[in-house]
Amino acid sequence: MKKAIILLGCPESPSQTPLTIYSAHKLTEMGYEVTVASTPSAKKLVEVADPVEYYVQNKIDIESCLDNLEEGEFDLLLGFVAKDAAVSYFVTFYHILSTKSLALVFHRDPEKLENFENSVRENTNADIVSARAYHNPTPLRVRLDRALDKIDKEGDS
Amino acid sequence: MKKAIILLGCPESPSQTPLTIYSAHKLTEMGYEVTVASTPSAKKLVEVADPVEYYVQNKIDIESCLDNLEEGEFDLLLGFVAKDAAVSYFVTFYHILSTKSLALVFHRDPEKLENFENSVRENTNADIVSARAYHNPTPLRVRLDRALDKIDKEGDS
Repeated sequence: MKKAIILLGCPESPSQTPLTIYSAHKLTEMGYEVTVASTPSAKKLVEVADPVEYYVQNKIDIESCLDNLEEGEFDLLLGFVAKDAAVSYFVTFYHILSTKSLALVFHRDPEKLENFENSVRENTNADIVSARAYHNPTPLRVRLDRALDKIDKEGDS
Repeated sequence: MKKAIILLGCPESPSQTPLTIYSAHKLTEMGYEVTVASTPSAKKLVEVADPVEYYVQNKIDIESCLDNLEEGEFDLLLGFVAKDAAVSYFVTFYHILSTKSLALVFHRDPEKLENFENSVRENTNADIVSARAYHNPTPLRVRLDRALDKIDKEGDS
């Protein structure tokens, strides 16, 4: 079975946890076994948002995950990038895993959004999906759908 | 079947949507049919957080809900109170429904938290659960569990 890992830094935006659940669901439907690696606060929010683990079964601490991470351990890296620390995590996971990678960049401040996007672009060859997002998850969800459809089609061909 | 309504104002805190799902799940387990009445942005987040409606099946716009609301239509009112507008919604629903009511008051700013709590206390006889909450949903979740257990026991007696 194909394996995907979703990376979560500390949640600043109300959109992060809902979009995490949404992404996990989409990736599961695409045939991936999904693991969510996150900081402790992001993990608590995922647990509360999915109390019977209907959407997310595998949750792991981002630091312990990093300690044991090996190249090729996952087939897809999906990183939520909404803080400086999240950029660093994404770049680190990207270089260790050397696999298909997608960064979901979002922030309500357009300047920070651009900074995060540039940092990811300068340090990786990952696909980037980016949108100003805070209350309203729709712009990011629509772009995420498009990017995942593209990955799904590449996998089929 | 007993009916519960969960009220959501615009989401400022990353905890609101996860705790909404959690509350809906708890109330369903307690035997309530649950409706979530919310502003459009809060609704979008609930939709993204529960893409196959596993936890929340009934969602309604808070304004349309208010237009047709009648006394006794719900057996339990659970209101998320994290903004001024949410206080007003809660007080209004409380007085129209005249039913068992619980306000979940949360904010990261202690002064605002106290203001919201006082406004609810001065204008209703609702039970109040309150905690500083932003990233970390645990303090609020623990108090919510306790309050819902109490309501559950009252219902049995």
